[in-house]
Formats: sequence, C-alpha cells, structure tokens
Amino acid sequence: MRILPLLAASAIAASAFPAMAQDLTAKASAVAEKALKDPTGWDVIESLTTEVGARPVGSPAMERARDWGVAKLKALGFENVHLEPFTTGAWSRGAESAEVVGPWPQKLAILGLGGSSPTPAGGLTAPIVVFPTYRAMLALPPGALTGKIAVVTEKMTRTQDGSGYGGINANRTLGPTEAAKRGAVAYLVRSLSTDDTRLPHTGAANPAGIPAAALSTVDAELLEHMAARGKPVTVKLDMTSSFNPAAQAWNVVGEIRGREAPDEVIVVGGHLDSWDPGTGAIDDGAGVAIMTAAAKLAGGERPRRTIRVVMFGSEEQGGSGTAYANAHKVETGKIVVAGESDDGADLIWSLNLPKGAAAHPAMTAFLTAIGPLKVIVGRGLPSQGGADISGLMLLGVPFVDFHQDSNRYFDLHHSADDTLDKIDPAHLAQNVAVWASFIYTVANSDIDFRKLAAGGQ
Amino acid sequence: MRILPLLAASAIAASAFPAMAQDLTAKASAVAEKALKDPTGWDVIESLTTEVGARPVGSPAMERARDWGVAKLKALGFENVHLEPFTTGAWSRGAESAEVVGPWPQKLAILGLGGSSPTPAGGLTAPIVVFPTYRAMLALPPGALTGKIAVVTEKMTRTQDGSGYGGINANRTLGPTEAAKRGAVAYLVRSLSTDDTRLPHTGAANPAGIPAAALSTVDAELLEHMAARGKPVTVKLDMTSSFNPAAQAWNVVGEIRGREAPDEVIVVGGHLDSWDPGTGAIDDGAGVAIMTAAAKLAGGERPRRTIRVVMFGSEEQGGSGTAYANAHKVETGKIVVAGESDDGADLIWSLNLPKGAAAHPAMTAFLTAIGPLKVIVGRGLPSQGGADISGLMLLGVPFVDFHQDSNRYFDLHHSADDTLDKIDPAHLAQNVAVWASFIYTVANSDIDFRKLAAGGQ
Repeated sequence: MRILPLLAASAIAASAFPAMAQDLTAKASAVAEKALKDPTGWDVIESLTTEVGARPVGSPAMERARDWGVAKLKALGFENVHLEPFTTGAWSRGAESAEVVGPWPQKLAILGLGGSSPTPAGGLTAPIVVFPTYRAMLALPPGALTGKIAVVTEKMTRTQDGSGYGGINANRTLGPTEAAKRGAVAYLVRSLSTDDTRLPHTGAANPAGIPAAALSTVDAELLEHMAARGKPVTVKLDMTSSFNPAAQAWNVVGEIRGREAPDEVIVVGGHLDSWDPGTGAIDDGAGVAIMTAAAKLAGGERPRRTIRVVMFGSEEQGGSGTAYANAHKVETGKIVVAGESDDGADLIWSLNLPKGAAAHPAMTAFLTAIGPLKVIVGRGLPSQGGADISGLMLLGVPFVDFHQDSNRYFDLHHSADDTLDKIDPAHLAQNVAVWASFIYTVANSDIDFRKLAAGGQ
Repeated sequence: MRILPLLAASAIAASAFPAMAQDLTAKASAVAEKALKDPTGWDVIESLTTEVGARPVGSPAMERARDWGVAKLKALGFENVHLEPFTTGAWSRGAESAEVVGPWPQKLAILGLGGSSPTPAGGLTAPIVVFPTYRAMLALPPGALTGKIAVVTEKMTRTQDGSGYGGINANRTLGPTEAAKRGAVAYLVRSLSTDDTRLPHTGAANPAGIPAAALSTVDAELLEHMAARGKPVTVKLDMTSSFNPAAQAWNVVGEIRGREAPDEVIVVGGHLDSWDPGTGAIDDGAGVAIMTAAAKLAGGERPRRTIRVVMFGSEEQGGSGTAYANAHKVETGKIVVAGESDDGADLIWSLNLPKGAAAHPAMTAFLTAIGPLKVIVGRGLPSQGGADISGLMLLGVPFVDFHQDSNRYFDLHHSADDTLDKIDPAHLAQNVAVWASFIYTVANSDIDFRKLAAGGQ
C-alpha cells in the first residue's frame, strides 16, 4: 500500500505565525470546539424532517420547505433572507405496482425512476430478460429486446469514498435509454444500494419514453432466482406519473454580511429538495443543517467578509446549480470560495483545499483548528465539488471538497430509509465543526484562492 | 456471572458404550457431517420462496403452497404424503394507508395487524396520543382515550434468546383491546422490531373492534418528534381488510415409515403459512426446509421407527397446532417425541432435552455427533416447545427445544424483509445437521422419553 503524502503537522509552525494568524488559529479552534457541542445542526435537521418531511421539487411539500427555509434562516439571525426563483422540470410519482404474473405470481417492490414514462392505463405485461451486468445488456444489438422488459441486476460495491455509486450510476441514468434503443418496452434496475432491505432506491434517469423503475435488491435477486429456472417469466407493471416541464422552484438564501469586505462572499450550501420516499434527512437535509449551523457559528462575531448560505431548490432533478450560477454570473469574481455538503451526515474523513492554499496562514489556522477531528488532508482523492456548485465551478469560482464517509450512505440514499434516526448527532456536529472553522478562517482573512492557485501569495 | 452447569463431554464416556451405541454414535456423526454439505435444506427454501413466496392462510398462494408441499415431499421420496384439512379464521389485508394530516402533513408506513377492523369507508381521522411505553397507556382509566388514536412507541430489546419479543408481545396482541377499552378509535404500535428500516412488521392481535396497525420504527419515532412539540397531531388511517371465520387450511404430512416399529412416530415440523409482506423465508420456510431436509437425511437408511414431517398450515393466525393434536389424539401415546423449528435460520446455539434423557446412550450418541457444531446443552433456558406442537405437548407428548440465535431474527420477522437473501446457507445447514442427528438417534433406538422423565431407564 502506498503511503500518501500528508501535510506537516501545522502546530510545529505555529510559533512562527504573525500575531494575527495566531489569533485566527485560536478563534477557529474555539469555533470548532463550540460547534461540537452546539445543537443548531441537529435542531435544523430535526425540524426539517419532522415539520416538512419529503419535498420533491414541484410538490406542495416543496412550498412548505421553502417557507420553512425562510423562517429558519430568519429565526437564526441571517440577514438578507430571500428567494431566488427559477423554473425546472419536475417528475412526479403516481400510484405504482409491479408483480410477477407467471409462472410464479409474486408482488415486487419497485420505485419508478425520475424521468420514467407511465405505463399505458391498466398496466403493461411482458416477459423479462435478466442481465447480471449492465455491460451484458449493452452487448446486445438494436431490436434484441423488442417486446421485453429488460432487467439489470448488477450489484453495487460498498466504499468509503462513494466510488461504488459512480461505478454503477449509468445502470440507472442511462439504462432506460439503452434498453429502449434495443426495443425494450420497460426497464427495471436493481437499486443502486448497498443495503439488503426490501426498500427500493429511486433516482433520476434520462427520459427514454418507456417505464423505468428500481427494484429493491431483494426483488432483483428474486427475479434472478426465477430466471435461473429457464422458463419465461412474465412481469406486469402499472405505473402512473406526471411531468411538469416548468415547475416553480426557489433557491433560499440568507447571509451574514461582512463588516469590511461585504462584497467578498463565501457561498456554502446544501439542497433543500429531496426524493419522495424518505424524509430527506441524509439527502440532503443534513447538508442544509450542516451549512446553516456552520455559517451561523462562523459568523457569530460579524466577519470581515460576507458568509452566504444557499438552500438549493432542485438538486435531485437538476436545475438549481445552473440557476444559481446564471443569476450570479456578474459577481462570480467576488465569490471567494464555494462549498457544498451533499453526502449525508457521517464524518468528514478527508478534504482537499484549492491548489496552493494549504500553506497560507488562514488555512494553517483552519487545519490546526480541525486537528482533533481526524480529517486526512490532501489524501489524493480527486476534487469534484458538487452538483449545486458545479455552475459556479464552471465559471472559475474556487471550491473546496470535504469528503464524508460514504460507507453507510448508499444503504439509505433515495429510499424510504432516508430518515432522521439514521443521523448520528456527534457525526453531524463534526461536519459542522469542520465547515464552521473553514468558513471562519476564510471570512476573517484576506485569503485569495485564485491568486494562490496561480502561484502568488 | 453464574457459570451454568454443562454436561460432561460425552466423548470421554464413548469407550464404555456397548457396540450398538458406538455404532449409533458413528452413524449419527456421519449424518451430521453429511448434512453440513447437503444442499436439500437450501434447495427447499429457495424453491418455496421463489415459486410460492408469501402465503397467508386463506389465500390463493396458500393453495399453491399446499400443492408445492405435497409435490416437494413426494419428490424427496417421502411416503404416505397427504393433507390433513381443517378450518380456521383467516384475516386478509386490503389496501392500507396512513398519513399525518396536520399540522405537518407526512405519509406514514404502516401494516395492519391480523385481527384489525377496517376503518369506515373513506378512512378515519383523529388526534393521536403518544405513549412511550405500553404501561403508560394501561395506567389510564376507561374513557380516557375517547375519540383518539392511541400510539404506543415502546422499543424492543435485541436478545440472543428472543426474550425481547416476549417482553413486548402484549403491546401488539393486547394493545388494540386495551386501547378500545379506554375509548380509542384506533391503535398504532411501534413494530416489534430490532431493525431501523422503514418497513413495518405485522403480526396477529386480538380482535378489538377497532383498526390496529404497526408503524415502522422510523414512523413511530417521527410521531414522537411531532408529539414532543406539544401541538395536537392528527392522523388519517384508511384500512380495508376482510375476515373469513372458516377458511380452509391443511397440514401437509409426509413420512419415512419405520422398519421395526412403524407405529412409533417422531413428529417434526415447521409452518408452511406466512405473513404477507415478505416471502416467508425465515418465518417459517426455514423451519419447513430444516425439518424436511433433516428427516430425509435421518431416514436415508430405513429407520427403526417412523419419521414424520408436518408442514403446519396456519401458525401465524393459529389453528394448525390444535388441529393436529385433535386429529392425532388417539395416537399421542405412540408419538415418541415432537420437535418444531420456528425461529429462523440462524445457528442453533443451545438446546434442551427432555428430563432424564441426556445420559441415555441414544442421546449420548446425538450429543457426540453434534459436538463440533457449537451447541450448549442444558444451558438453563426454559423449554417452551412451539406453537404448532403445543397441542401435542398439552397431551403429554415429550418434546425437545433447540434454540436458534435470535439476535437478527426480529430485524426481519413479519416484515417485507423476511426473504431468502437473509438466510446464510451454512447456518441453515447447521440446523439441519443438529436435527438430522437427533432424529437419527431417536429413530434408530428404543429411547422412551416418558419413561426417562419418570425416572426409569
């Protein structure tokens, strides 16, 4: 195993700091310590999951979430609380059922994928073809699945860095299109899940003009057992759904205005919308809670620069990141750094800083402050940012990438199990502590990530 | 911690055995060894869960299960394969839904309890009263819950011996009656579950004339969070169900007839019916598979006595144990011993033999044979038998009690997660090995448990 280079322990260099840097370090440490005991993060996620619950874009619940977001930011003392409206496509689930009708009648647990077409009224019945891997389906020529329901039962790998999801993501997002190209009348995919419950995991898929749904892992294996018998197996799907190409959506914004450089802005956020089966606790109420709490703690004494929290309004079905970037094009030069939390509530175990930044006194102060929090710095994982800041990233805004432990995330993600009880308050607080001390050091220094990346100091 | 007395290692005494006992020991060991590698148990449970699936008493699926049982016993070479019909009450689930309608609208995951009344057409809407323990509800006087939905959210304890279930069983079985006595219009109970998925666990309850359902553990906690806010919370239930007081049911029976004493019978079984949400894998397809495989392996060479396998036809809603005892009253004196497997498919970790039996050469042979299988003998757990042999037990039939590890059982029990993928084939095979060597030694000796219990030899 290759040992990855780590940064030298920053405490050694502390005695060489100028007085301002020492003060920043002490204050960032105090912010982190306070965050570990502060209830704000937990209170926010407990409130959102209890008082709103599931909130898909385009739904009445999303309107309640919007109002909740505005009220919560105001109650926590944020300034300039406002909505930034946009429109986006919104797929909405209706009644759904699936069953094997022969030769061994059994009900199947499914969830339609966002982007799925409904079945014809009364349902759709067809023989299935089961593929143990997505590649096995792709190997077939056009027309090979005419009149069939294609079923891909490939399993997902549990990983700490979440790469098991990326490795299999096309099975869900592109599978319906590839099945339709080959003549399939519907597409079923084993849930992108590392758990073994009978709860399916939904998610977005490219619209392919055919019904498409996720099977629970259990039901995917049931169909494998049936298919292994070598007899034709027939499945009936009955799925209703609707699509609104221009649903109203909102990014919910609050700020703590800077005292010296208010037009220099730190943008942090998570997404407020969720899929419908759970209560959107880990995806991504947790990100909203972490960033809201971290911004509040970092901005407890009025900061030099402005700290802005964005509750993005349509991540799952897309739109909020692009809308945000479009609305803020004119000020992107003033956005000091962007950060997003959208991988649950488990511990941050590794992080990347923008190129050239780690040796800057502000970042040394930050890294010293989080020294007790067991975070590996610069481990070598790629910097990917996130969907909701991707629009800003494309415009050249610097960003940071804090990696949460994903071992458990895909047990829960996009399923009815995405609920509050899965969140460990101590792990949530560690996230708040890391982000709060980062935001604090950036907001109370003049660090310029663009200049550092270009080799300046 | 008190060290419980264990039996002396029986291998030490082996040299003193008469030749017949040595032969029995060697053959019982060979049966156990063979069972650990034999695929029959797995094949049976794979077949039942794939080709039949869920099979509640009174359903068309139960008729398919009956036919499956007859065909399977015949295919495995059992003799005298036949049905023993009886009638019993059968509750049948219809459409069900539950939601918080105010002040924070959210859907709830429920499963009606067997014995529940349906709601009025169009549903039932009422404020809830949440009790953290069952005792807290019992403390209220009659009339105290008039017009309310009573909600008991008490948690279940995970235990190896299953006692966590017994400790809380009344919350489900008697809760509806006690709630109705106090004027409640409906009753919701936190699932008797040790897992944290959003899948509810159903089960039987005494009919109380009101709708009664299990909440998933997640939804029970959601209602606790809402109730903690101190505002009235209103829930709507919409449940349909039907009850057939005289549904047709069958015990499915097969035998391996004894060569010397064919009217001396060893009765072993599990129950073929299941609840509806899963595929009845651990409850109790596993018991059916274990006993069928064990009987076949034990009876591979025609035994002295008759080995009888019973697939009981209505355990979950009751009836099959009583029906079996009633039908076999005249031969109970000839039933040498009865055994039931109905706690899943995890390892047998402890067992009790009838009083006075352990020192008999047949049981010494049995205990020697299972020496490698890590079973504690006579640990002190009470002998309870099981629901389907309870009728025979009341008639004085000797029985054995083999305890399966229940740590994981109540994660799955009575839920949609009761599926094949939860069964470890190696653990299933250990069960088969223990039962097969027990059945072998009893069927090929003249051990008389009644005489041993009375102090004879």
